[in-house]
Amino acid sequence: MCTAATYRTKDFYFGRTLDNDFSYGEEIVVMPRNFPLSFRYMGTQKKHYAMIGMAHVEAECPLYYDAVNEKGLGMAGLNFVGNASYRKAMPDRENVATYEFIPWILGQCRDVEEARALLEKINLTDDDFHEKLPAARLHWMIADRDHCITVESTKEGLQIYDNPVGVLTNNPPFDQQIFALNHYMQLSPEEPQNHFSAQLPLYCYSRGMGALGLPGDLSSQSRFVRAAFVRMNSRSGQSEGESVSQFFHILGSVDQQRGCCKAGDGRYEITIYTSCCNADKGIYYYTTYENHQITAVDMHRENLEAHIPARYPMLQEQRIYLQNSDC
Amino acid sequence: MCTAATYRTKDFYFGRTLDNDFSYGEEIVVMPRNFPLSFRYMGTQKKHYAMIGMAHVEAECPLYYDAVNEKGLGMAGLNFVGNASYRKAMPDRENVATYEFIPWILGQCRDVEEARALLEKINLTDDDFHEKLPAARLHWMIADRDHCITVESTKEGLQIYDNPVGVLTNNPPFDQQIFALNHYMQLSPEEPQNHFSAQLPLYCYSRGMGALGLPGDLSSQSRFVRAAFVRMNSRSGQSEGESVSQFFHILGSVDQQRGCCKAGDGRYEITIYTSCCNADKGIYYYTTYENHQITAVDMHRENLEAHIPARYPMLQEQRIYLQNSDC
Amino acid sequence: MCTAATYRTKDFYFGRTLDNDFSYGEEIVVMPRNFPLSFRYMGTQKKHYAMIGMAHVEAECPLYYDAVNEKGLGMAGLNFVGNASYRKAMPDRENVATYEFIPWILGQCRDVEEARALLEKINLTDDDFHEKLPAARLHWMIADRDHCITVESTKEGLQIYDNPVGVLTNNPPFDQQIFALNHYMQLSPEEPQNHFSAQLPLYCYSRGMGALGLPGDLSSQSRFVRAAFVRMNSRSGQSEGESVSQFFHILGSVDQQRGCCKAGDGRYEITIYTSCCNADKGIYYYTTYENHQITAVDMHRENLEAHIPARYPMLQEQRIYLQNSDC
Amino acid sequence: MCTAATYRTKDFYFGRTLDNDFSYGEEIVVMPRNFPLSFRYMGTQKKHYAMIGMAHVEAECPLYYDAVNEKGLGMAGLNFVGNASYRKAMPDRENVATYEFIPWILGQCRDVEEARALLEKINLTDDDFHEKLPAARLHWMIADRDHCITVESTKEGLQIYDNPVGVLTNNPPFDQQIFALNHYMQLSPEEPQNHFSAQLPLYCYSRGMGALGLPGDLSSQSRFVRAAFVRMNSRSGQSEGESVSQFFHILGSVDQQRGCCKAGDGRYEITIYTSCCNADKGIYYYTTYENHQITAVDMHRENLEAHIPARYPMLQEQRIYLQNSDC
Repeated sequence: MCTAATYRTKDFYFGRTLDNDFSYGEEIVVMPRNFPLSFRYMGTQKKHYAMIGMAHVEAECPLYYDAVNEKGLGMAGLNFVGNASYRKAMPDRENVATYEFIPWILGQCRDVEEARALLEKINLTDDDFHEKLPAARLHWMIADRDHCITVESTKEGLQIYDNPVGVLTNNPPFDQQIFALNHYMQLSPEEPQNHFSAQLPLYCYSRGMGALGLPGDLSSQSRFVRAAFVRMNSRSGQSEGESVSQFFHILGSVDQQRGCCKAGDGRYEITIYTSCCNADKGIYYYTTYENHQITAVDMHRENLEAHIPARYPMLQEQRIYLQNSDC
Repeated sequence: MCTAATYRTKDFYFGRTLDNDFSYGEEIVVMPRNFPLSFRYMGTQKKHYAMIGMAHVEAECPLYYDAVNEKGLGMAGLNFVGNASYRKAMPDRENVATYEFIPWILGQCRDVEEARALLEKINLTDDDFHEKLPAARLHWMIADRDHCITVESTKEGLQIYDNPVGVLTNNPPFDQQIFALNHYMQLSPEEPQNHFSAQLPLYCYSRGMGALGLPGDLSSQSRFVRAAFVRMNSRSGQSEGESVSQFFHILGSVDQQRGCCKAGDGRYEITIYTSCCNADKGIYYYTTYENHQITAVDMHRENLEAHIPARYPMLQEQRIYLQNSDC
Repeated sequence: MCTAATYRTKDFYFGRTLDNDFSYGEEIVVMPRNFPLSFRYMGTQKKHYAMIGMAHVEAECPLYYDAVNEKGLGMAGLNFVGNASYRKAMPDRENVATYEFIPWILGQCRDVEEARALLEKINLTDDDFHEKLPAARLHWMIADRDHCITVESTKEGLQIYDNPVGVLTNNPPFDQQIFALNHYMQLSPEEPQNHFSAQLPLYCYSRGMGALGLPGDLSSQSRFVRAAFVRMNSRSGQSEGESVSQFFHILGSVDQQRGCCKAGDGRYEITIYTSCCNADKGIYYYTTYENHQITAVDMHRENLEAHIPARYPMLQEQRIYLQNSDC
Repeated sequence: MCTAATYRTKDFYFGRTLDNDFSYGEEIVVMPRNFPLSFRYMGTQKKHYAMIGMAHVEAECPLYYDAVNEKGLGMAGLNFVGNASYRKAMPDRENVATYEFIPWILGQCRDVEEARALLEKINLTDDDFHEKLPAARLHWMIADRDHCITVESTKEGLQIYDNPVGVLTNNPPFDQQIFALNHYMQLSPEEPQNHFSAQLPLYCYSRGMGALGLPGDLSSQSRFVRAAFVRMNSRSGQSEGESVSQFFHILGSVDQQRGCCKAGDGRYEITIYTSCCNADKGIYYYTTYENHQITAVDMHRENLEAHIPARYPMLQEQRIYLQNSDC
C-alpha cells in the first residue's frame, strides 16, 4: 500500500511512499510542455504544463504514480482496491481513463481550484492501458500550497473531499479515515496529564507518553493516523535542507520494513521508494528501500520546451560516504 | 531517549539511536590499542582491544555512547533515569565509574561470556566525570554475534538479564519491558484470521492488519515493543549493503520526528543520530537527523597500534545526490 | 447512549440498555390489540398485534423505547444524534412520525420480512409529538428469531442494513460500526498463540488474554465492539433462567457505571434500565440501576383483547433478599 | 481469576468476584468469637474476633475466600499462580499456612495497622490443607476504611504494598499492576479535548470518549485497569442501598460472561459470585452468575458468642419478581 503527504514551510512539498511486494519498474520522468498527450477520449494536447514525477513508462508513455507540475500542483494515485469503482465512458462527460488522470489534471490546472473545476465534468473510465496492464484501483490526493483534496471514484460516484490532514493512505474510503481521527484526539506531543484519578500518584516514566494509543502497525488506517499525527505536529526550519529532511522523517514514520507485512509466497511488502517534491522549485527528491541517500532530479535543469520526456532511472544502490577513505 | 538493536545476517551488526533535545557534541572515535586507559580505581591499561564508536570527547577522553571492539563485542549505554542507581566504591569489588564502563568491558572482553565474568566482580560507582558532567543514569546492552545481555544497576543491585530480543530502550526496567511483550504475542506479519466470530463475515481491508495493536508512539515501552516486532520479523539479504540497509529500517521504526515529543521550552526530542556497526568488520555506519545518507568510518583504515584516538566529526549536513546535475 | 442486543437459545430474546443522565419517566406498558392507534398521517388502527415494552406515556399514549409484539418481533429505538435526519411528509409515501414508528411496525408485522415490506413504503417524518417533546434523533433495530436489521434515516435517505451481529449502539452509522469489527477479528475467547516471534518465550500469564485489544470504554463504538464480542461468544443453557441470566450478562458488559461518563453540570450518564424480553413468551424482564433483581411483566397475564394499555411502574428500589432474616 | 475492590461512602465496603470454570462449593459462613481456631504451628485461639465471609467448608473448617471481621477489617485471597511462592516453616517466625491466613489476620487485627504488625513476624508456609487440597497460589488484599494493602509472598520474600487503588486482580505482581496505570493516566470520564492538532476539526461523536483506550478484555491486567478506573471515578449516594448498588456496578465492570474466556475441555471461566460486605455493619451481600438478585447475610443477626459457625448455602437460583403476578 502507500502513503502520501504534503508539508509546507517556505516552500510547498508533496510526496509519497510506494509500498509493494514487487515493482513494475519506476523512473523519474520530466514531461516537457510539448510532449503530445494523446487521451483515449479527449483528443490530443500538444501543449500543456510540464511536470516531474515517478512513473512506469510503458510504450513511451509515462504512467505517473505521483507528480508535480511547473505551477506547483501535486497529485498522487494510491491503492484503493475493494472500493475504487470506475464506469464506462459516458456521452456528456469528459471521459478520462485512470492511467491518464494525473497528466489530465497536471497538464491543465494551476491549482486545486482549477482541478476542482475539471473534476466537475469528469468521468473516470475503467479502460485498461492494455490487456496486460489493467486499470489500477486507485484514489488520488491533489494539493497545492493552500489546498488539498482527495478524489475517489466509488460505486456511489465521484467523491471529492477536502483533505485538511494532507495525508492519504488506502482503504477505507477517505471520510471514514478522517472520522477515525476522532478516536485519537487526546494524543499529544506534550506530557500527558493525570485525569484517571487525582488520588493516584501516576507519573510519566518516559518522554513521549502523550501519544500513547497511536497505532504502530502497517495497515492503511493505522498509517493514516500515524502519518497524520507526525505531519500535523511536525516542526522544522524553513530552509530547503531542513524541510526536505523533515518530510522524509514524516514519511519514515510509515516506512514498511521488509518482514513486517507478508504478501504471500514468501514475499514481503516494503517501501520501494519515498518521494518528496519541492512543488515550488520542481525538484523531485527520493530515496529507495536500499538507498538511504536522498537523490534529486531538478525539473528546471531540463529543457521544458522539449518534445520528449527526460527519463532517469531510480537509483537503488546504497551510496555510502566513507568518511575516512583517505587514511 | 534511545533505542539499541542487534541484527545478524552473515555478519553481526550492533547499533542504536540517540534521541534527545540537545547534544553534547558527538564524534566518531577510533580508540587504538595503545591509548592508555586510566581508570579512577582500576589503574591504567596501557594495552587493550581497539574499539570504534560514537563518543563525546571531554578532556581528550572519549566518553562512548556506543562502541564495538575489534573482537566483535558491542556495547551501548541508554538513558535509565529514575531507575539507575549506583553506589560508592566498595573495597572488595572492581570499582568502575559509569563513564568508564564501556572501555572497561570492550577493552578486555572478546565476547559476552568474558563480559559476564567481569560483571561478576564489578561495582558501578556514582562518580561524576567532573562536577559539570555528572554520572549519567544509564543501563547497557552488551552483545556479540551469539549472545546479548542487558545490565542494570538499580537500588536492588546489579541486574544482568539475558536479552533474547536484541533490543533495549529505557524505562521501565528490562524485566518489565520483556514481560510486556506477552501482551502482543498475537501480532504477526501475516494476515489475521477471524477468531472473533465464525458467524460474522470479517475481512482484511488492508495488508498489515496482522499487527494491529502494535503501539506507534515514542514512549520507551512502545518503542521497545515496536523495535522488537520489526527486528524479530526482519528479512534481508546477507550482503553488507542489504544488511546495513535493513538495520537502518529497523531503527527507523523508532525514529523520533521533530515535533512529536515536546521536551519543554519549545524544544523537541529528535533522533540525533542512528548508528549501525558491522561488528565483524569494524565499520561504523551512521545517519543524523538532517543527513539521511549513511556515512561510514572504517576502524581498520586506522592505525590500531597508535597511541592517540582517531576522531571524526559527525557529519550533519544533508548530502543530496543530484542525478541530473550535468544537464 | 444505549445498547440493544438479541440472543437465541430455545426461545428468542430481545432487549436493550437505556443510558442517560436523566429520565423522562418509564413504565412497562402492555398494549392490547384493541387500543386504537391514531397515526398522524396514516389514520387509525382499531385492531393490531398486542405488544409489551418500556415506554414513556404521554397524554395516554405509550411512546415505546423498545417493545416486542405477540408474534415475537422486537424493535428498539436508540440515540443517533448527529446522523439521524427525517423529512417532511411526502405525498406518495406512508408517512410515519418517529414516535409512532415502533407501534406502526409491531402492530402490523409478524416478522422482519413483513417489516421490510412496510419499510419499502415508509417515510419517517420529522414531526414532534408536541412542542415540548421534539422528535428524538434515533435509529432502530428490528429482529425476530431468524433475522435482524438496522434502520437508519439519514441525509442520504432510509438505510436498511442486515445486522448479523444482533447488536446496536449509537454513532457512527451502522455500516461503519460493523466495518470496525474487522479491526478486532483476531480477538478470541481462547488463549492467544505466539505469532510475534518464534524465538521469544512469550506466554499467557492470565486467562482471557486472547481478547486483549477489546475496548473497555463507554463510547458507542467501543460498546458495539464489546457487546458484539460477548454476544457472539456467549454460551448458556437453553432454559428460561439460564437464557435470561446470560442475556443480562451480555448487556452487563456495556453497563454504564455512575461516575465514568460525565454529562455536564455534575450529572453522569448511567444505565437507567436494562431489559430482556422473551419474544416467544411475551415476558418482559428488566433491571434498573438501583435494583439488581430481575423484575418481570408477563404480557399473557393481561387481557390482550382489552382497549386500554396495562401500565406498570418501573420498580427502582433495590430488593435484597435477607437470607438469615429469621435468625 | 478474580477481582477485589473496596468502596467507601458513609460506610466502608469490601468485596470481590470469584471467577473460575468450576466451584469447590461455597457457603456464607459467620464465624463466632468462640469457635476455636487451631493453627498448624501457632496453637489454638479460643477467642477471637468474629467474622463473616464466603468459604469452602472442609472438615468443619471454613476456608475463607474473603471475609470481614466485626471490627471492619476485610481480607480476600486471589489467584496468583506463577508468582506466589511459599516457604517451609521457619524457627524464628510466626508460621501460618496460607489456608489459615485470613482467620489469622481477621481474628486478631482491628485494622490494617495491626495487620501490618502481624505481617512483620509472619512466614507463609507451603503446607497443604490435606493432600487433595493443596495450598492455593494466592495473594491478598487487606483493607479497613482508611487503608488498603496488598500482600504477596514471592520467591523474593514477603512483599507488602500500599494499595491506593483499592483493587486487586491476579498476575503480574502488584507493583507492575499499579505501574501499568501510568499508561492510562489520560483517561477521563470527561469529554476529551483535541490535542492531536488544532488545525483539524475533531469532535466527540459519542459520550464516553474520554476513556478511549481503557482495556475491555478479561485478562488480569486489563481487569485491574478497568476496575481501577470505574472505582476511582465512582459516584453514588451515601445510603446503604445506593452504596451497595454502586459497588456491584463497580465489580460488574469486570464480570466474566460465560463464553468469553475458554478454560479448556469446553469449559468457560465465569464470575461464580460477586460479594460486597458492609464492613461497618457486618452485612455480606452477594450475587451469583445465575442469580442477579442481591442476597444478604447479616452477621449481627447471629449469636457471635457461639462456638459453632453459622453456615448459609450460596443461593444460586434466579429469583425473579413477577410484577403482574396477580392479574
